Amino acid sequence: MTLKEKIREKASRAKIAAGKIKKLSATEKNGILLAIASALEKKEKEILEANRKDLNLAREKKCSFAFIERLTLTKERIKNMVDGLRKVASLPDPVGETMGEIIRYNGLRIEKVRVPLGVIGVIYESRPNVTCDASGLCLKSGNAVLLRGGSFAFNSNFLLVKIMIEAALPKGLPEDSIQFIETTEREAIGELICLDEFIDVIIPRGGEEMIKHIKSNASVPVITHGKGLCHTYVDKEANPEQAQKICFNAKVQRPGVCNAMETLLVHKEIAKEFLPKMIKIFKEADVELRGCTKTKTIFPSLKEATAEDWETEYLSLTLSIKIVDSLNEAIEHINQYGSQHSDAIITENKERAEQFLSWVDSASVYWNASTRFSDGEEFGLGAEIGISTQKLHARGPMGLKGLTSYKFLIYGNGQIRT
Amino acid sequence: MTLKEKIREKASRAKIAAGKIKKLSATEKNGILLAIASALEKKEKEILEANRKDLNLAREKKCSFAFIERLTLTKERIKNMVDGLRKVASLPDPVGETMGEIIRYNGLRIEKVRVPLGVIGVIYESRPNVTCDASGLCLKSGNAVLLRGGSFAFNSNFLLVKIMIEAALPKGLPEDSIQFIETTEREAIGELICLDEFIDVIIPRGGEEMIKHIKSNASVPVITHGKGLCHTYVDKEANPEQAQKICFNAKVQRPGVCNAMETLLVHKEIAKEFLPKMIKIFKEADVELRGCTKTKTIFPSLKEATAEDWETEYLSLTLSIKIVDSLNEAIEHINQYGSQHSDAIITENKERAEQFLSWVDSASVYWNASTRFSDGEEFGLGAEIGISTQKLHARGPMGLKGLTSYKFLIYGNGQIRT
Repeated sequence: MTLKEKIREKASRAKIAAGKIKKLSATEKNGILLAIASALEKKEKEILEANRKDLNLAREKKCSFAFIERLTLTKERIKNMVDGLRKVASLPDPVGETMGEIIRYNGLRIEKVRVPLGVIGVIYESRPNVTCDASGLCLKSGNAVLLRGGSFAFNSNFLLVKIMIEAALPKGLPEDSIQFIETTEREAIGELICLDEFIDVIIPRGGEEMIKHIKSNASVPVITHGKGLCHTYVDKEANPEQAQKICFNAKVQRPGVCNAMETLLVHKEIAKEFLPKMIKIFKEADVELRGCTKTKTIFPSLKEATAEDWETEYLSLTLSIKIVDSLNEAIEHINQYGSQHSDAIITENKERAEQFLSWVDSASVYWNASTRFSDGEEFGLGAEIGISTQKLHARGPMGLKGLTSYKFLIYGNGQIRT
Repeated sequence: MTLKEKIREKASRAKIAAGKIKKLSATEKNGILLAIASALEKKEKEILEANRKDLNLAREKKCSFAFIERLTLTKERIKNMVDGLRKVASLPDPVGETMGEIIRYNGLRIEKVRVPLGVIGVIYESRPNVTCDASGLCLKSGNAVLLRGGSFAFNSNFLLVKIMIEAALPKGLPEDSIQFIETTEREAIGELICLDEFIDVIIPRGGEEMIKHIKSNASVPVITHGKGLCHTYVDKEANPEQAQKICFNAKVQRPGVCNAMETLLVHKEIAKEFLPKMIKIFKEADVELRGCTKTKTIFPSLKEATAEDWETEYLSLTLSIKIVDSLNEAIEHINQYGSQHSDAIITENKERAEQFLSWVDSASVYWNASTRFSDGEEFGLGAEIGISTQKLHARGPMGLKGLTSYKFLIYGNGQIRT
């Protein structure tokens, strides 16, 4: 069997599985999820061992800090995965929910009912927790899933999927509901994204190049989970201490993820008061700073930030700083260079905050909080399948409902159209 | 300027317009819609004249019956367009609606608010009413629109857009909010569907080949409005008279549109009672009939229906008939050959109806009514932008809300992530 045929075969089996998994009751699905969680918990040691193999190879190949950070599993991260699955089990089943009902002039009753999407292909970077998070959410929402994780996470993913399936099948998971694309060859992606007769949606998560390639070549509908070029704007009416705390958190707490801050915008009227302390704190945390021309007049020693910096998602302890003349300049900078992911304003002025919330065209816009909260669990959706950076179907943190569609059921008694 | 540059220029201007049109109030948008409606009403004669030019060319080029039927404007159809715009004006403004609100454990208040998609590209067949329906819906939902209608409707579309813009600008429509892609060259489509820096969604409506091309080549997200291969299944427990009335309506009332019936499925136990009368009525209406082997044992004179027939959207007065052994066979036939558009069961048995409603994997599933009702207005959505045949974002008849996205507004007082 060629690679192409193999992928096709898997996808066609996923479609058959989708016809079965959509029939499972909430109780059945929750039982499967809890069994998977317990199995993962028990196999913690083996999982860490498999992950170590992956990490060794990644270090050998000199992968970046951010890359290795995302690849790493720890006891705590495994616990988070397990807790995530249990949380998903505790969430209400979205399938079958009546989303609306209307009785028309001619007596037709039209009911809108939530249904699974069908088959979901998840293509993701070397971040093994996604394997379990995505499977759990797809399962709970009644979908079959095809997983294609980054090749550096092969050992971790292979084992995680094996554990999940072994725990789930005896509890009634239909065969082929969770499938792992075992090959690490790139062509697998090209094939997967064109199987629209079997697959209902492709969810790519990862680097810009990969997302761009998938968007341009897929015939299956795509929900992109891409770049997170997030800004925090410290307004002239900000509480400086609050601003410091939020900016530090947004940049330093976990710099390798998409909701971390990449560019700090500061109003010129507060810059001289705010920036010296802020920069001192960042330097103590080993943040590499780059400043615009105006910033450099205050801190000549900083490296200069160029146009390229405004467009760069560092995903590391690097930060570019820009002093702006007005709220409008901040909004325009964000709408021009941002990735419509997560952006924050720090201000005590309600009117200015509301202007920012309304005109920044991003999925999540914050007032006086860290952008690091852009996350399905933090938004109360249970574990997330990712953070959508497009406007279609699902935007921002995407949980269970993002993995469903709907259908219309029309009840008549002989109505015809005239 | 090359064609490519021209399209790009239009799209970039649409993006600027989108930033303005999203700020309009409901009152402003409704005023514009009503002004457009009145202008179209006044220019009825000119519109019919432009349409006549298009029709003459289409007849000269020997376009099909279904094609010409869709291209045709009549006084009544213009009135429908005008009424549609007025109806859209009367609908509530979806923009700004709070879709959900949650206060989290840490005090963060997260609000989900409905926002316009941005720039919408509509690529459609030679069906001039779409020009006005699509513009009205995009406008009301705060979006800018790029219209690329079929080349045979060029004169009709050109005039309709001209009338709309001339009526709308004085009422405050931002410039470039409604733009017509004037070239009839095919390359225009190829360019349009890859401008994801300016366009948020492409809505193609039309033939299978065109939709397939767009799906495979677009980098802009696509909502397909494709094939309508609709079935009516007459169950063994159907009321035969009701079934007759519904089947006749589904096939004959307007055979050129996507929600018309293409295949009639009949349970074997009712076939001998039901089919003779039904076939007589169809023949009187000049419907060309094709039957499966079993049907032909009762009506040997019918042309034989082949596998190709089950896959064909005739869009004309042709119908294929298949006798099935069971409800399950009917469901399987529909899920295999249908286009997940609109399918109906005629039965007096509630349990069998519910099985059908639940297992037929189509956007609209009917019990005892004609599939011809699959339509935004009939579903109470106001005029529709089309009927989505995919599961992502919008499924089935797609009205105003289908043209929106949402964003999250997060209100904090210094929250950071730990």
